[in-house]
Amino acid sequence: MSDAFIAVDWGTTNRRAFVIREGAVVATERDDHGAAMVPRDDYPAEVAGIRARLGELPMLLAGMVGSTIGWRQVPYVAAPAGFEEIVAALDYVDDRTAIVPGLCYRDAVRADVMRGEEVQLLGAFAAGSVPADGLLAQPGTHCKWARLEGGRITGFTTAMTGELFSLLRAHSLLRHQMDGTAQANDAFLAGVAEGARHDLAASLFAIRARAVLGAKEDATSFASGLLIGGDVAARIVSSETVYILADPPLSDLYSAAVTALGGTPHIVGSRASFVAGITRIREMTA
Amino acid sequence: MSDAFIAVDWGTTNRRAFVIREGAVVATERDDHGAAMVPRDDYPAEVAGIRARLGELPMLLAGMVGSTIGWRQVPYVAAPAGFEEIVAALDYVDDRTAIVPGLCYRDAVRADVMRGEEVQLLGAFAAGSVPADGLLAQPGTHCKWARLEGGRITGFTTAMTGELFSLLRAHSLLRHQMDGTAQANDAFLAGVAEGARHDLAASLFAIRARAVLGAKEDATSFASGLLIGGDVAARIVSSETVYILADPPLSDLYSAAVTALGGTPHIVGSRASFVAGITRIREMTA
Repeated sequence: MSDAFIAVDWGTTNRRAFVIREGAVVATERDDHGAAMVPRDDYPAEVAGIRARLGELPMLLAGMVGSTIGWRQVPYVAAPAGFEEIVAALDYVDDRTAIVPGLCYRDAVRADVMRGEEVQLLGAFAAGSVPADGLLAQPGTHCKWARLEGGRITGFTTAMTGELFSLLRAHSLLRHQMDGTAQANDAFLAGVAEGARHDLAASLFAIRARAVLGAKEDATSFASGLLIGGDVAARIVSSETVYILADPPLSDLYSAAVTALGGTPHIVGSRASFVAGITRIREMTA
Repeated sequence: MSDAFIAVDWGTTNRRAFVIREGAVVATERDDHGAAMVPRDDYPAEVAGIRARLGELPMLLAGMVGSTIGWRQVPYVAAPAGFEEIVAALDYVDDRTAIVPGLCYRDAVRADVMRGEEVQLLGAFAAGSVPADGLLAQPGTHCKWARLEGGRITGFTTAMTGELFSLLRAHSLLRHQMDGTAQANDAFLAGVAEGARHDLAASLFAIRARAVLGAKEDATSFASGLLIGGDVAARIVSSETVYILADPPLSDLYSAAVTALGGTPHIVGSRASFVAGITRIREMTA
């Protein structure tokens, strides 16, 4: 059993810190001191502040803290990679403070990067929530899809699904039609079916055209289904199980899209996965 | 031979007026009194102003002037449709002023609308620039693709290709990388090949990932190729000729994408097509 430590999931806009003892969270805090908000020189004081509030404990920092906008840039570990490669590449700021490296992936046609998600994705396996081999999805602004083989991430793809949705809702021709909240309803499922046709630019204009021609449609849900459907259809092999690391409402939407496209969704708690992943990393350094 | 008349191509943001005599433009003006700028009640004065400047002639108005944001809403003519159906549905405001209707299209999965483009698309055929049967593309913010059969538009698809490019350049994660002008270069062609894979949300994130991993890339041209390549690949049947109604630089970009994807591009003058189309409509009313 490892001693208590502090784990920080340091995102771009938000930051969560956990005190973890014997695999269980005994204290937590969340604030908006994300990496985009913290000047580089302020990290020592930020970290000291967390320790002042949560305890003088060893710390593991994951996420954007290791990026160009973070404390210091920690090189990516190339996938395929699992816990061993990540632990071997921990970047120690001092003897009780280490930054977890992100992962990169390259093949003939693709390049991809992640920072922070690797802890959650591998943690879902460490927690026993997903098998050693499977397809994991972590929906969000940038949806991460990871292929797990033998408990290691052998490849991954990021899709700007959530960001495209936000851009369309805020700035596009469709912004006046996209005035609600996306629901996993019939309009969403119609969008999923259309998204699987992979003709996004045309499918989007058709939303406008239908409204001009007088159709009443939940355009927000349809557009959400269009984007999520395109994302899911590009990733799953039919009848495959997809392990979805998300909370409602995103977990509901991705789950509905996976089912509609012939896969089997399985929702996994994202916080528990992070805690399990970072605890495994801590145990391997002890 | 028809007498002289005034043709107005009344877009959302711009307006062009032509005095046409025996099929030739003898005077023209262009301003920013697009339909979005002109309050409904101002149309009589706007039209009187055009006549005061260009002559007391019969007028044919095409484009957004017939839309919900225009002078008055003229019902769409359902495709398949050619000049005959359009002429039959001209909306006469008075005995010397008529608005040209737009076209709509519906099938089991698609809905689409156009206002103004139909004059140019059918005009390309009237001018002898395209055959009676062919695939026409009119690139822009919303790229119109029309299937011509027997000199009539039998179906069409609008893709928000240009609008997506603008949204990404102005507001997305990629905005700092997209700082140049799109060129039909190697990066563009790499984008076209990637776009034909129809996985836009993931292909877009990869632009970011490659930059993070240190690759130097003309991201503007790649992103342009990605969007245009996806658009062209969804529309053409291999080795088909595509008649592109556009001016540089868009004509160059679409031409390069069509060639890269196995089609044969053929560039057609868009202004000459409009003039030929509106002249044909005028002749059929005389």
